[in-house]
Amino acid sequence: MTPYEIIYKKRNGGELTPGEIKWFISGYTAGDIPDYQAAALLMAIFLKGMTAPETTELAMAMMNSGRVFDLSDIPGIKVDKHSTGGVGDKVSIILAPIVAAAGVPVPMVSGRGLGHTGGTLDKLESIPGFRTNLSYEEFRHTLARIGLAMMGQTPDLAPADKKLYALRDVTATVDCIPLIAASIMSKKLAEGADGLVLDVKTGSGAFMQKQEDALALTKTMTAIGQGMGKKMKSLITDMNQPLGRTVGNALEIEECVDCLKGSGPGDLMEVTYALGAEMLVMGERATDVESGRRILQQVVTSGQGLEKFREMVSAHGGNVKVADDYKNILPQAKHGVEAKADKSGYIYSMDNREVGLAGVFLGCGRLKMEDIIDPAVGFIFERKIGDAVKPGDTIVKVLCNDEQKGREAARRLVNCINISEAKPEAVKLIKEII
Amino acid sequence: MTPYEIIYKKRNGGELTPGEIKWFISGYTAGDIPDYQAAALLMAIFLKGMTAPETTELAMAMMNSGRVFDLSDIPGIKVDKHSTGGVGDKVSIILAPIVAAAGVPVPMVSGRGLGHTGGTLDKLESIPGFRTNLSYEEFRHTLARIGLAMMGQTPDLAPADKKLYALRDVTATVDCIPLIAASIMSKKLAEGADGLVLDVKTGSGAFMQKQEDALALTKTMTAIGQGMGKKMKSLITDMNQPLGRTVGNALEIEECVDCLKGSGPGDLMEVTYALGAEMLVMGERATDVESGRRILQQVVTSGQGLEKFREMVSAHGGNVKVADDYKNILPQAKHGVEAKADKSGYIYSMDNREVGLAGVFLGCGRLKMEDIIDPAVGFIFERKIGDAVKPGDTIVKVLCNDEQKGREAARRLVNCINISEAKPEAVKLIKEII
Repeated sequence: MTPYEIIYKKRNGGELTPGEIKWFISGYTAGDIPDYQAAALLMAIFLKGMTAPETTELAMAMMNSGRVFDLSDIPGIKVDKHSTGGVGDKVSIILAPIVAAAGVPVPMVSGRGLGHTGGTLDKLESIPGFRTNLSYEEFRHTLARIGLAMMGQTPDLAPADKKLYALRDVTATVDCIPLIAASIMSKKLAEGADGLVLDVKTGSGAFMQKQEDALALTKTMTAIGQGMGKKMKSLITDMNQPLGRTVGNALEIEECVDCLKGSGPGDLMEVTYALGAEMLVMGERATDVESGRRILQQVVTSGQGLEKFREMVSAHGGNVKVADDYKNILPQAKHGVEAKADKSGYIYSMDNREVGLAGVFLGCGRLKMEDIIDPAVGFIFERKIGDAVKPGDTIVKVLCNDEQKGREAARRLVNCINISEAKPEAVKLIKEII
Repeated sequence: MTPYEIIYKKRNGGELTPGEIKWFISGYTAGDIPDYQAAALLMAIFLKGMTAPETTELAMAMMNSGRVFDLSDIPGIKVDKHSTGGVGDKVSIILAPIVAAAGVPVPMVSGRGLGHTGGTLDKLESIPGFRTNLSYEEFRHTLARIGLAMMGQTPDLAPADKKLYALRDVTATVDCIPLIAASIMSKKLAEGADGLVLDVKTGSGAFMQKQEDALALTKTMTAIGQGMGKKMKSLITDMNQPLGRTVGNALEIEECVDCLKGSGPGDLMEVTYALGAEMLVMGERATDVESGRRILQQVVTSGQGLEKFREMVSAHGGNVKVADDYKNILPQAKHGVEAKADKSGYIYSMDNREVGLAGVFLGCGRLKMEDIIDPAVGFIFERKIGDAVKPGDTIVKVLCNDEQKGREAARRLVNCINISEAKPEAVKLIKEII
């Protein structure tokens, strides 16, 4: 077997065997196969595609390039959720505690914000003391003790993916469904869950803006997961506007606490319950999604969800008072600027990617991994798609530490939010369940 | 401009601008653009193709990455010939002297044998003392003085091609017509000729086995040459069996001397005259190919061709007695082994690539550039396609210095030469003129 033969075969549209994929990935990870041969193979894959078995094998080979968690000695069916990323997507921080409180263990390896989307780890780290850099043993121990644990990626998790991702980034081979799916699944399945519920975002603030692309990605990820013996369920959900009311790290934690206290916004709770109900069914704590949803609502109403959140914060070294008095615990921005409607009508649509990028500009996120985040800043959406506005009505409150940046972010928001005379159709949050 | 944008554009099937191609090639040659980005671009070009203007621009950018000969102060229209390579293709060694003797200057940069095909430089170097590593000044001087000069590629000739060829070789992007055409033309046009006659081989011993591929390559090379303001003419010629009677370095020089003395085999002389007549027309020494052919025949009959060959050998430091007494000047093999017919019938076809590889096995050529050639060994074909044979008739005489290798080569020849009861159609040597 030579790298040449494997590139040649894929270039001609052939299907690589499991042995060829394993051999190439392990050779590349070890540094025996040079970047230029991997780059040629990536471009051939980009242009010639991969079959479902090839994609599964690629994800497995990338997963097996590093440590694979073994959680089999922890009782229960462990279920995780993965979102393809969006603006204001804080679902994990509400979902993990309520699903764990309902009895399904949730091992969750999360990412950081990059580009226009936010990251769960950045949000959690706005809680003073909260540590996400758990070791494998700490992660296992926390999961076993309280039924959930959150951690960031470690260098030994799917190192092949890390290397390949960096190469894809400079060879124009990022936006390729088999490569995206294998990359996500290689990391997600290394964490040792028995099942995975996917939240695949679509719309102007999603990586897959078109629903058909989101569906194709969903099917590919589902095939990989099932090929690796995992339970899989996917929801394709709306990302044409931020989910919930807030965008920004500490602001989103505040909103999550509100949700766990029963006063969360409707759209955010609908998506959270829909995903959580699937997790309860998968974890055999509910017979169907309707009863799953009732159990989760009860977990919130009874305060068990908030209590589990406290346990999680405590287990990760964070200040548990955040659950009761977040205004005095979380960093607060100094200034507020308002993005106001300039005409009458209805909020018809927005460029949600631009909303995310305006947030990054303000300090909520990063364009490069080295960029520094300001946890206090962000947006509070007072009105969303479908709401009526008059000139001068506040649509978004921009919270900032630098008023000039705040005004610029507000200006960008006004420019990317479209107001029309016609009232738009109601937003369909859950577009498909696969 | 970034390498990423250029890869992205080609990946999406876009047409690169002259500026983009120049910038990428010069950045790659300088080492500013890494191999992995060039590999991704090569694979994207392989799978998405290149338009005629892009291919011309690529050839020019590669040519301009190094030294470009300026022969404009040497009088006359300088014309070269390039063959895409074959088995027993010794045309250049006969052609250059007779065309030069007829008054058209021939500046010729030649290559070495690689794979199943032979190389003009290796053949010339079997003449004791013959130097092919001329400097640019020596080459110019020799051309001005005697009307022809032969040299090998120097490191400063199209260095971008050298780097890209090595990368193509390990990334499965060699067999791609725009890349092959740009590679050949970048080197060939750096030598400063005003016109180029191409001999594009097709058949079992050619790189382009199918005539349609040979035609596509011809058209691409013609477009490049014309795009660079050069006169272009191409012949697509047969390579289903060795050209002439011999395969092997010193043996082919012997055959060339015989040709220059007027006793060359018909097929070899037909191809040589056809190419040479085009060169005389291009060089304005003949009004049409018919008169060009007559002039060249006269050059041979009168001995002017052999005399020009002597001048060439002398100018390159070789022993001029090769023109009169080659058996005592050229290295001779110690042993002879015969490849014989095992049944009655006609020689119907042969796998000419395998003929070439059997020659490489014997020592006529090399699979890797480091392999060492034995100038004395080779094949003498006593019978060719269309000839009748009886069991025991010698088809090929194998000349070797190692009898065991000779027997193995003979066995390989017998296996790749097909004898049938039916007489094949006469070989059409010149298949197309473009």
